[in-house]
Amino acid sequence: MKGNLFVVSGPSGAGKGTICKAYVEKHPEVYLSISATTRKPRAEDADGVTYFFIDEDQFRAGIAKDAFLEHAVYCDNYYGTPKEPVMKQLEAGRDVILEIESDGAMQVRSHFPEGVFIFVCPPSIEELNRRLEGRGSETPEEIQARLEKAKSEFPRAKKYNYMLMNDDVDAAVQRLEAIIAAEKCYMPRNIEFINKEFLK
Amino acid sequence: MKGNLFVVSGPSGAGKGTICKAYVEKHPEVYLSISATTRKPRAEDADGVTYFFIDEDQFRAGIAKDAFLEHAVYCDNYYGTPKEPVMKQLEAGRDVILEIESDGAMQVRSHFPEGVFIFVCPPSIEELNRRLEGRGSETPEEIQARLEKAKSEFPRAKKYNYMLMNDDVDAAVQRLEAIIAAEKCYMPRNIEFINKEFLK
Repeated sequence: MKGNLFVVSGPSGAGKGTICKAYVEKHPEVYLSISATTRKPRAEDADGVTYFFIDEDQFRAGIAKDAFLEHAVYCDNYYGTPKEPVMKQLEAGRDVILEIESDGAMQVRSHFPEGVFIFVCPPSIEELNRRLEGRGSETPEEIQARLEKAKSEFPRAKKYNYMLMNDDVDAAVQRLEAIIAAEKCYMPRNIEFINKEFLK
Repeated sequence: MKGNLFVVSGPSGAGKGTICKAYVEKHPEVYLSISATTRKPRAEDADGVTYFFIDEDQFRAGIAKDAFLEHAVYCDNYYGTPKEPVMKQLEAGRDVILEIESDGAMQVRSHFPEGVFIFVCPPSIEELNRRLEGRGSETPEEIQARLEKAKSEFPRAKKYNYMLMNDDVDAAVQRLEAIIAAEKCYMPRNIEFINKEFLK
């Protein structure tokens, strides 16, 4: 695997989608994986851009064929990362970002311990509540479910390599830029070069 | 310890001094430690700025008082990092950079495993030779000693957290900026915040 795999996750409402979208707009050399889902498209969605919208039968067929890098049920809908495009990009030396829920992140972690796992974090619990309530696209029951689910994700934070504070989108994108640039310097990714050039 | 400790090392001629100097010029909020040494000042040196120039008796007295964070003999001269100013800055929450030889870096690593260890690396062995020969301030014997010493440091590279490639000073400074910014996001440095804010 020649590209680096970055897994950006965190509670709903932390802003992981906004950050990743802004990042790849500035850095089109990085491939942002597109997930498949069985959830209904929202107003801002476009098939093949925000998600691949497929039905449950298609999703189950994908699972059976081992076509997903990770998949999870979240708020009664399936979400999954198609394996093939990600592996192709990594093999070609391109960095890849997966923006996924934390159940999926933990699955990817068990298969790709060399991946970089980034937990997007809101500045406070009050701000998280505000963001989830302010979204306006869901029923009160859905919001409540998301809030409970969101809070349940913090105990997992320690399993991630980095905390990406999202107090401000521009600052958060700059932090992601720093993390991705620093990881290129991470010694285990460079030791082969040193061995070859200086220790032959 | 509230600030982060960054230890920048690597073979003589890799350019660690130039990079650190350029970094703190852009980031005066970071404290660059000033080493003490018994070596003779060069034309570009200024006492208390590039080094504290002291004699061997003074240096030995400092060792006896445990006043150095690390010290080493290098090309027949003593070099050491005065402990007190570094600890003061770290306690005050300021990040600190030590630009030191690799013997000293390994000593610091044994006492501060939470430090960030950065190995500055020239792009090639030929370029390293060129830089050491081009310096012009030393005798051929001194150059040869530095070359041998430089080459002997590469097997230690794997003990560092990061490789900082110095093919170009500006690019290298940007990499150092990324490493320092990313380390602020490193999860173990943030888990206390998450526990306090979201898991109380």
